[in-house]
Amino acid sequence: MKILKAGFIQTEPEFGQVANNCQRVADLLEKADADLMVLPELFTTGYQFTDREEVAAFAETIPEGPTTGFLLDLARDLSVNLVAGLAEREGDALYNSAVIVGPGGYLGKYRKAHIFDAEKDLFEPGNLPLPVFDIGKARVGIMICFDWRFPETARTLALNDADVIAHPANLVLPHCPSAMVTRCLENRVFAITADRVGREQRVPGEPLKFIGQSQVVDPDGNILYRASTDGEEMKVVAIDIDLARNKNINPRNHLFQDRREDLYRL
Amino acid sequence: MKILKAGFIQTEPEFGQVANNCQRVADLLEKADADLMVLPELFTTGYQFTDREEVAAFAETIPEGPTTGFLLDLARDLSVNLVAGLAEREGDALYNSAVIVGPGGYLGKYRKAHIFDAEKDLFEPGNLPLPVFDIGKARVGIMICFDWRFPETARTLALNDADVIAHPANLVLPHCPSAMVTRCLENRVFAITADRVGREQRVPGEPLKFIGQSQVVDPDGNILYRASTDGEEMKVVAIDIDLARNKNINPRNHLFQDRREDLYRL
Repeated sequence: MKILKAGFIQTEPEFGQVANNCQRVADLLEKADADLMVLPELFTTGYQFTDREEVAAFAETIPEGPTTGFLLDLARDLSVNLVAGLAEREGDALYNSAVIVGPGGYLGKYRKAHIFDAEKDLFEPGNLPLPVFDIGKARVGIMICFDWRFPETARTLALNDADVIAHPANLVLPHCPSAMVTRCLENRVFAITADRVGREQRVPGEPLKFIGQSQVVDPDGNILYRASTDGEEMKVVAIDIDLARNKNINPRNHLFQDRREDLYRL
Repeated sequence: MKILKAGFIQTEPEFGQVANNCQRVADLLEKADADLMVLPELFTTGYQFTDREEVAAFAETIPEGPTTGFLLDLARDLSVNLVAGLAEREGDALYNSAVIVGPGGYLGKYRKAHIFDAEKDLFEPGNLPLPVFDIGKARVGIMICFDWRFPETARTLALNDADVIAHPANLVLPHCPSAMVTRCLENRVFAITADRVGREQRVPGEPLKFIGQSQVVDPDGNILYRASTDGEEMKVVAIDIDLARNKNINPRNHLFQDRREDLYRL
C-alpha cells in the first residue's frame, strides 16, 4: 500500500476577480490534509474571455508570474502538491495552461493541447509534451478539460507511467464525468477532475453553465467521490497508488502487454 | 440523411446446441426489417469451452463451414447484412472470430485481437487487421467483446472510416455498455453491441453471468436503445449514417483534425 491523500477544490470563480478567487482557494485549501490537490482550469480568472486582448491582460508568465508565486507559497506552507489552471503568456503567445508546484518548489507546466471551440480565438494550442511529474509518492500526469475527448491523451500519460491524472476543467458538456471512468478503466490510473460551477455570459448567446461534478475515480472505474453540480467544495480521499501500478485486470490480462500495436493506427 | 435500419439479436445460447441456437436466431431474425443485424460472440456454441479439444470439435472454417453457410442463406433470404461471432479453425489454429455476410454473399471475417482471460488457453490472438466493410449504405467496422477495453481498437476502425462498429459480445464485467458511449463520443461513430444473457458453469468456480444490455449508441453518445439484462430480444432502430461522417462536434472542433499526433505515444 502506497497511500496518497489526494483531491480537488471545486470553485465558482468571479470573472476577473483574481485576488478574490485566489483567497477563496486559499480558504478551502487550508482545511485540506492532502498530498496532492487539483484546482480548476483558469481558476484565477474565470473562463469566458471576450478576446485575445482580454486574455493578454490577465495572462502571466510561468513560473515567474504572481499566480505561480501564490501557489508556491501555499504549497510550501501547507506541504502539499498543487495542480492548477491559469492563462499563460510567453512573448506574444497565449496558452490555456496548468502549473504543478510542490513543497519544494516549481515542478513544471503543461499547455492544453486540444483547445475547445471559442478558445481557438484566444489561445494557441499547446506546444509542450503531455507531462508526468514525480511527486515522490506518485507520478502525476496532467491534462486539461477537453483533452479528455481524445483517448490518446490519457493513454500517453499512462504509457509514460502516470499513476494519477490531474485534470483541471471548466466543463460545459455533460459527458466528461462518465467518460473519465472509461479513461481510468482502459489505463488503470486514478483520475482527479477539478471542475468549476456557476454561469458566465460575457459574450452574446446562451450563457455557459458549468456542470461541477468534480470527481476522483480509481483504476477499477469506481467513482470514489463525485461533487455536486452547483456548489463550491473541497474533498480529499486516500488512494492506494499501488493499484495504478498493477496493470493486470486479471491474472491473464495485462492492459499494456495485451495491446496490439501491430494492429493499431495512430 | 442516409438511413440505415440496424440492430441486434440478444440470445441465451445453450452450450453446444448449435442447431437449436441457430434456429432461435432464425426465428428472431425473421421478424426484423433491417439492413444490418449484429449477433453475439460465439452465438452458435456458447462461451465457456473446457479446453482446446472442445473448441476444435465445434470450430469451423470461414467461409466454408456450415455456420457461415447458414448465415449466407439467411442474409440472402431476408436481404440483410449480418455480423456474427463463431469459433474458427484454420489448420491447427483456433480463433474467436466474427463473420460478415450480405445478401450478395460473403464479405469477410475478423479474429478477436484482444482475447480475454481463459480464452488464452483456447484461442490464438487474432492475426488479421481491424476490418471495415462497405455494405453500400454504410461502412461497418467489427470488433469483438473485450476489444472494447483498448481505445485503439475503435479508434483504428473509425480512422479507417467505419460509420458503425458492429460489436458481438459475451459480456461478464459491468463496464462495457457505458464505455461504449465513450467510444462513440470520441470517434463520432455508431456502435451496436450484441450481447448474450444467461449463465454458464462448465468449469469449477463462480458461474459466468452474462449481462445482456445489448445496445445501439449514436455518435453524440445517446443510447438509442438498451436491452434488458436477462431476456432474449431483437431490436432494430433507424440511424442516420451522415451523423457518423461529420466529425465536427461544433463548428470549431473536428475530432480527427484536432488530434495531436505530434504529442501522442502509440
